Amino acid sequence: MIKIEQKDHNLKIYHNDQLVIHHTDTNPAFYLGSGTAHIENYRGNYEIDDYIESRIPLIDFQCQDYEITFSYYMLSLSISLSEVDDRLIVDFKSNQPVNRFWMRIYATPEEKVYGCGEQASYFNLRNRDYPLWTSEPGVGRDKHSLTTYYANLFDKAGGDYYTTYYPEPTFVSTRRYWLHVDSNAYAIFDFKHSDYHELFFWEVPKSMVISFKQDYKDILKDLTSYTKRPPRLPEFLHDGIILGVQGGLEKVLGYLKQAESHGVKVSGLWCQDWAGHNYTSFGKRLYWNWRLDEKLYPDLKNVIKELDKKNVAFLTYICPFLLKNETLFNEAKDNHYLALNQDGDSYILDFGEFDCGIVDLTNPKAFNWYKNVIKHNIIDLGIKGWMADFGEYLPVDCVLHNGVDAKLMHNAWPVLWAKCNYEAVEETQNLGKVFYFMRAGGHGSQHYSTSMWAGDQSVNWETHDGIASVIPSALSTGIIGNPFTHSDIGGYTSLHGNIRTKELFERWLEMNVFSSYMRTHEGNRPSTNFQFYQDDSTLNLMARMTSIKVALKPYMLHLVDEAMEYGYPVQRPIFMHYPEDSTAYNLQYEFLFGADVMVKPVVHSEQSTQEVYLPEDDWIHLWTGTHYQGEQRVNVGCPIGYPPVFYRKNSKFRELFDNITKEYHNKGGSL
Amino acid sequence: MIKIEQKDHNLKIYHNDQLVIHHTDTNPAFYLGSGTAHIENYRGNYEIDDYIESRIPLIDFQCQDYEITFSYYMLSLSISLSEVDDRLIVDFKSNQPVNRFWMRIYATPEEKVYGCGEQASYFNLRNRDYPLWTSEPGVGRDKHSLTTYYANLFDKAGGDYYTTYYPEPTFVSTRRYWLHVDSNAYAIFDFKHSDYHELFFWEVPKSMVISFKQDYKDILKDLTSYTKRPPRLPEFLHDGIILGVQGGLEKVLGYLKQAESHGVKVSGLWCQDWAGHNYTSFGKRLYWNWRLDEKLYPDLKNVIKELDKKNVAFLTYICPFLLKNETLFNEAKDNHYLALNQDGDSYILDFGEFDCGIVDLTNPKAFNWYKNVIKHNIIDLGIKGWMADFGEYLPVDCVLHNGVDAKLMHNAWPVLWAKCNYEAVEETQNLGKVFYFMRAGGHGSQHYSTSMWAGDQSVNWETHDGIASVIPSALSTGIIGNPFTHSDIGGYTSLHGNIRTKELFERWLEMNVFSSYMRTHEGNRPSTNFQFYQDDSTLNLMARMTSIKVALKPYMLHLVDEAMEYGYPVQRPIFMHYPEDSTAYNLQYEFLFGADVMVKPVVHSEQSTQEVYLPEDDWIHLWTGTHYQGEQRVNVGCPIGYPPVFYRKNSKFRELFDNITKEYHNKGGSL
Repeated sequence: MIKIEQKDHNLKIYHNDQLVIHHTDTNPAFYLGSGTAHIENYRGNYEIDDYIESRIPLIDFQCQDYEITFSYYMLSLSISLSEVDDRLIVDFKSNQPVNRFWMRIYATPEEKVYGCGEQASYFNLRNRDYPLWTSEPGVGRDKHSLTTYYANLFDKAGGDYYTTYYPEPTFVSTRRYWLHVDSNAYAIFDFKHSDYHELFFWEVPKSMVISFKQDYKDILKDLTSYTKRPPRLPEFLHDGIILGVQGGLEKVLGYLKQAESHGVKVSGLWCQDWAGHNYTSFGKRLYWNWRLDEKLYPDLKNVIKELDKKNVAFLTYICPFLLKNETLFNEAKDNHYLALNQDGDSYILDFGEFDCGIVDLTNPKAFNWYKNVIKHNIIDLGIKGWMADFGEYLPVDCVLHNGVDAKLMHNAWPVLWAKCNYEAVEETQNLGKVFYFMRAGGHGSQHYSTSMWAGDQSVNWETHDGIASVIPSALSTGIIGNPFTHSDIGGYTSLHGNIRTKELFERWLEMNVFSSYMRTHEGNRPSTNFQFYQDDSTLNLMARMTSIKVALKPYMLHLVDEAMEYGYPVQRPIFMHYPEDSTAYNLQYEFLFGADVMVKPVVHSEQSTQEVYLPEDDWIHLWTGTHYQGEQRVNVGCPIGYPPVFYRKNSKFRELFDNITKEYHNKGGSL
Repeated sequence: MIKIEQKDHNLKIYHNDQLVIHHTDTNPAFYLGSGTAHIENYRGNYEIDDYIESRIPLIDFQCQDYEITFSYYMLSLSISLSEVDDRLIVDFKSNQPVNRFWMRIYATPEEKVYGCGEQASYFNLRNRDYPLWTSEPGVGRDKHSLTTYYANLFDKAGGDYYTTYYPEPTFVSTRRYWLHVDSNAYAIFDFKHSDYHELFFWEVPKSMVISFKQDYKDILKDLTSYTKRPPRLPEFLHDGIILGVQGGLEKVLGYLKQAESHGVKVSGLWCQDWAGHNYTSFGKRLYWNWRLDEKLYPDLKNVIKELDKKNVAFLTYICPFLLKNETLFNEAKDNHYLALNQDGDSYILDFGEFDCGIVDLTNPKAFNWYKNVIKHNIIDLGIKGWMADFGEYLPVDCVLHNGVDAKLMHNAWPVLWAKCNYEAVEETQNLGKVFYFMRAGGHGSQHYSTSMWAGDQSVNWETHDGIASVIPSALSTGIIGNPFTHSDIGGYTSLHGNIRTKELFERWLEMNVFSSYMRTHEGNRPSTNFQFYQDDSTLNLMARMTSIKVALKPYMLHLVDEAMEYGYPVQRPIFMHYPEDSTAYNLQYEFLFGADVMVKPVVHSEQSTQEVYLPEDDWIHLWTGTHYQGEQRVNVGCPIGYPPVFYRKNSKFRELFDNITKEYHNKGGSL
């Protein structure tokens, strides 16, 4: 129900009795203006200097039913209110072409907000502003860290708290609503103000949708019925770990054998180098011409069939960029499938010592052609999954087939790329059987990305880019409707003196039992970083943790069911199920794994005990069977292999958890 | 002559046939708006977050004679044009109380601008924007340096290219004008645009003055007749070096004796610890209760008389802050002479492990009282000079006697502080005999500060905060009318691993022969940094360089005469005397010392030769007598003691320079 209240210079817009917009002449709901942006791009890292030429408060307004025109002098914005599926829809239209737009949504001082895509530094976004622009998140992401200092110095790649692969103009508020703005333009969502949220865009957005619900479960359900939900996660993912290995068939089958001989449950081999290798100063890179390297992986189709028999999937890698002067590049170029530069030539992008063209996904023919590349070069081989990498890099100065300014397509690119993969899987009747994982995202990833991964963390313990950062990442993508995500076990980026240790790998391993699925990565510099296959005791730990993952399969299937039916994410903020618990809203390094399991991973080095906040409920410690009453902080021991995990006494999976406790409790030791 | 041209939506304002303002509806000359600033202050380092609420282009205009009203809807700005002393004066008045103001001054793409106070990173300000806010300049001042990284991390004190003790809304353009805006508000002068300069203020300024002249000499003369010029520099300063030493009378007299025994020409002893010591983690600090410590300096009045006989002045230190609970603080507090906090108590400022009150210089009684402290506690002792330190620190949340918002008084503080010192000297009939040196400044420093010093450089070779940075500092303060400045020989700040070396001290020493006067400083951590009194060969070099300084005295007196009569600075950009030389406008690490001497100091470590650009003229190398034709780059050797210096063959001081060449040429070696 829409309600509009007018009084003198005051205007209030309610939906379902909740105040959405409160306009006064000293607190105008809308501003329009103009600006000029200077954007510098260095390998996916963007420096954006926005010169705001004008910002005009639309103080005056006139209402006619559900059409309201806000204006100042000759400039006006008309908004049109309607209700669809019990959601409030607001359509926008300005009377002049302007390129800067600000809108204020009513807020309360104590309100908290979550989402805006994947946010790796802060789950609660309040008191900060968030530029929404898909990019490399940066190395370090914290100006106080030396990692960031050196990443900025050498590569302009330090990042900051808000830099993300996956920005989205969508958030969830503790006022119990979700909000989405229909725009791909660069935006800044500013949550620093006590009585409004200011949403800023480089265009007049088409519309906004806001939906108030009773609780967070309803919010997730409603939001994901709006975004649509992803396909079912393939069941084989619950049967073990995906080993991220490379170096050719003989080598990777050797790793598999080694792992299995230690009792590791393996669900897949992820061989990103299926198309060959490239070497740069950054480390070992892939050969970006996406077709099987038959020398490295001879007779792969038959090998895959053999692997299928023992329920081990084979996984690969692809991205929407093509190595210059190679076969796919040439084919795309000849067919005019590549994005162009201002001179009308193929746009060539430097990826760090090698150059690539960009498949123009706005060209339906190019889109279909690349979809067929995925079908023929990957799916036809029997491949069950891949990393669909690099959606962030669309340069703002390229010329696209659809004629839209690349600045406005930049944020749309990840979802176009997701859709290309989605359709390849859908059209081969493989939804729910074949999957891919993406780091870049945007509005629509909820549906078109079969799963996410958190991207390239530094191989260390730093808060904003190390192991801890994948937890707020999972919670923020989850709260806006992406149920399935995970992270590289062990992290990825080894630069500026950061080298992966055995301890880091093992903490990451035990943490990721409690994510959608488990996958390792060798990182950008495999030979100088710790690898599981170098260490028997780590392989033994992998056997333990993957066995627990397999033991959790019935629970995992239940979580996937919930994701399909309600859009609930696998990793959830505690407040989703304990909305009355005010402490829960401030926790970003512990989470619920489904409704029944509480996890607070160990994200610091050399830690032997962990303090965990338990919400009000009856909890049982997974490794000792000790009962705890919630609504308090408890301390538990946390030797490696025993991450702080609790389950609900009243869970309908109680027996399953009890059995894990029996089988995997800390034999002999006390926690 | 003022000329106004109108045509449709176009308006052009000329002065003396030069275009000053070009208004169109797509390039409005004025914008008004509102904003809210969040200012964080940490020991003189400010983090300013300005939220611009509105920025309204005043597109419409109406002229009536020399009154023009620019407006948009209900908001308007009236400007009134008049001519005084052949300068254009523009007065501003808005019809509504607004706190954000933007003005665009016509510019050409090739134009360069200089000034805006003291600028240590870039002399030519074009293509950057310059926040104008007096503050600590920071340690490192370059986000690419580790010094800056650590200074930010530990003390929020890294600074940036624009941070300065002395900002001023005054600049000189290569379009041959000077411009000043009458406002103390926070400002940003944005020189990044090709066809206008955008000047931004946190208030509607009272007025602007702009004055077009034929050449830079006329600009200096006119600008300093507007600002008024400082008193004459005391003559004793040309008779040698001021030794910055401390530790009590016995110690400093020992240093004097040691220096003199090596043949060093000493003009003064600067003993900043005359009021006693304090120790903090930063280093050795002074005891901020400004009265003689008679234990450290017994019988000082008589000692000064003895020193006077041999033409050695005694110098001290003072700042406008008073150590909490000490005698001056208590006296000021009892008389209500201290600035207050929001609760009406004395405002207490943390200076790094010690707390101080602030003398409220807006209170005429407090101003007079503090003037008398200077007279009685300093001048009456026979003291000839002092560092008048710390004008930058006025906190924006203190309450002042004059009722003006401290945010608007912050930039005015340095000049109030200068005026307090000035009047103490003036009222004791000591102008031209007694002097002080200040780092903080603002509009009026030209008159009220008897000389400047460049503040606390890092004791290293880093571009933006080391030895090199004092050159653009001198040129920028000079070009807007401050003829006399100098820097701490050897630099000051030893933090984050930077330790002063003998080489750095000696390069700084030889450079400062060619500044207004010479003064050493022990730095913030005397015991761990190189000091001249530890090293005989340095003392011998000091004997050489100070003898040259003394030999230059007739030339120095001429430069002081020029400063008095025309406002010409001692250190000048080359283009001041060679305006047709396009290369000259881009040089910021070489300068003219008066009209007849070209200097390019050595500002890198382990350098044996230096490339110097000579403008078109006949030049003679000071250390070899070699003649060079100008308008070319030449290479000269530069062993320590022989900085690259040239003099004009046609100088009327030719004989003086020739004699220096004869006396001080590189005996034996070749350069």
